Amino acid sequence: MRAPSIVAQVPTECVIGVDLGGTNLFAGVIDSELVVARRTRRTVAGLELSGLLDEIAGAVGELRDELGSGVDAVGYGIPCLIDDEHALAASSVHLPLAGVAFAEAMSERTGLPSFVDNDANLALLAEHRNGAAQGERVALMLTLGTGVGGAIMTGGELYRGAQGAAGELGHMTVDPDGPDCGPGCPGRGCLEAWISGSALAREARAAAQADPAGALGRALAQGREIAGPLVSRLAGEGDAAALGVLTALGEWLGVGLASLVNIFNPDVIVIGGGVSGAGELILEPARRVVAQRALAMPAAHVAIRAASFGAEAGMLGAALLARESIARRVAA
Amino acid sequence: MRAPSIVAQVPTECVIGVDLGGTNLFAGVIDSELVVARRTRRTVAGLELSGLLDEIAGAVGELRDELGSGVDAVGYGIPCLIDDEHALAASSVHLPLAGVAFAEAMSERTGLPSFVDNDANLALLAEHRNGAAQGERVALMLTLGTGVGGAIMTGGELYRGAQGAAGELGHMTVDPDGPDCGPGCPGRGCLEAWISGSALAREARAAAQADPAGALGRALAQGREIAGPLVSRLAGEGDAAALGVLTALGEWLGVGLASLVNIFNPDVIVIGGGVSGAGELILEPARRVVAQRALAMPAAHVAIRAASFGAEAGMLGAALLARESIARRVAA
Repeated sequence: MRAPSIVAQVPTECVIGVDLGGTNLFAGVIDSELVVARRTRRTVAGLELSGLLDEIAGAVGELRDELGSGVDAVGYGIPCLIDDEHALAASSVHLPLAGVAFAEAMSERTGLPSFVDNDANLALLAEHRNGAAQGERVALMLTLGTGVGGAIMTGGELYRGAQGAAGELGHMTVDPDGPDCGPGCPGRGCLEAWISGSALAREARAAAQADPAGALGRALAQGREIAGPLVSRLAGEGDAAALGVLTALGEWLGVGLASLVNIFNPDVIVIGGGVSGAGELILEPARRVVAQRALAMPAAHVAIRAASFGAEAGMLGAALLARESIARRVAA
Repeated sequence: MRAPSIVAQVPTECVIGVDLGGTNLFAGVIDSELVVARRTRRTVAGLELSGLLDEIAGAVGELRDELGSGVDAVGYGIPCLIDDEHALAASSVHLPLAGVAFAEAMSERTGLPSFVDNDANLALLAEHRNGAAQGERVALMLTLGTGVGGAIMTGGELYRGAQGAAGELGHMTVDPDGPDCGPGCPGRGCLEAWISGSALAREARAAAQADPAGALGRALAQGREIAGPLVSRLAGEGDAAALGVLTALGEWLGVGLASLVNIFNPDVIVIGGGVSGAGELILEPARRVVAQRALAMPAAHVAIRAASFGAEAGMLGAALLARESIARRVAA
């Protein structure tokens, strides 16, 4: 929670949640029952900073105008390290937000109380309050999207570390000589380099080229987009190349999860983000590798589950952030 | 803190701390200033369960008899996963303690209030209360001994996870196709397999064989024990093979620390255990790799330090456990 200057007078009944990914923005009006009353989506890949902030403010304004009645607050999930002390987006791998006082900028542009947190933190907040991690004491989350986000919750509170930057579970090294992790991360062979949506597309294209006669190979030849949804569908239909890609991704996920099981002894690990749409096609191999590699006692205890809210977890969590932040202010 | 049946009447002034490693047991009488008034050491490698428990009780009895006056409590650090709910040593890689209600067994054998925790947890407790992590909010510790222990402390409290088994930082996978981790851990290429004392000895023997004319090679030919102390001394004298072994170990340590920096955003990571006697010869390469691989903001923040208490951290932490546990009972 950072930096807004407007204080609400009553507990909010109507909030907007914004989930800003590396590629798309999802925004929705969320009612008190966590139902998405209205929603909108924008593409943000490639935008410069001011265009990006305008696009976000535009999405919020569109929802507010449609709604007609008052909006109490807006929560934003952003794919950035957060610097708690300085209320900044400290660094961002996929968007030009490094060094931006994001909540303050959005308050100025929208005139609404604005709260911001890391997108994966907010996805876990939603899953913990109403979804796959409900009631669990020690919960972790990985969001497999353009990049891989992570979040840690113990005793109902997000764990933020010394500066607010904790929880980057996608940036564990699982393969020291592996591929460069990409812009914003100086690492190599991070978990993200094997289990993100980008990694899935890269491996699927390679598999399609290696098996041009298969369904995946023919899809490539037809110029179709080789990405998660297609790969999941073809794997579900039994295409060996697509199945192989998802199995390998799930096994890498399992290598990372085994380490997290040994480190955190968690009750539950929730897998969300677009890639998690593959469901059991990646979760089954991940659980198998955890059982093979992790220490027996914590491995037998942990539940590894798909996110309840799928692609909407981040947006719902952003709305919950706004709602809980305003409720805390009123209580204070 | 688990299961003892005797309640002390006053805050303790005299406690015994026992640090049980995979190879040796160190026990000491610790006064209120954390000074070790008396100490003893036993070799425990290879003992069966009842012989092991007798040996530990023997060390405690020896110190108590020498002391003449009353001992208020004994704290034990053991190299085991702890099962909080069932007050058991849930599993142990290097000693036959799996399934043993350790505190209860030692209370029975010694007649003294007995408290037990994971050895690395206690080393961090000592470093946090009086050593290299003093005053730090988010502190991690790795103990590089026969195996590699780990511990996590936030806000002055040890983090234990869902069952008490958390903090096994040595069992992060850093090399998925690496060597089997060893008995008690089903993993492969765990950090422990590259940075433990056993790993150091293995790599040093290989380096000695590859360079028979060097100082390390000549030491091997003379039948000397190729282990941490000799390797550190020869490296300090400039032997290239010994230096190479410690540099490589430090770089593997850095790979693991980079992941921990990204996950926890810690204030400090303390490196203890016998191998940490190599000091800057391993810490310098570790810090270099962290700077290369970890996310910039948490990497710039974290301090990576040698343990203040060296080989005695576990024993002092065990004494602090006993003291703080008794103080809590009196306060309750």
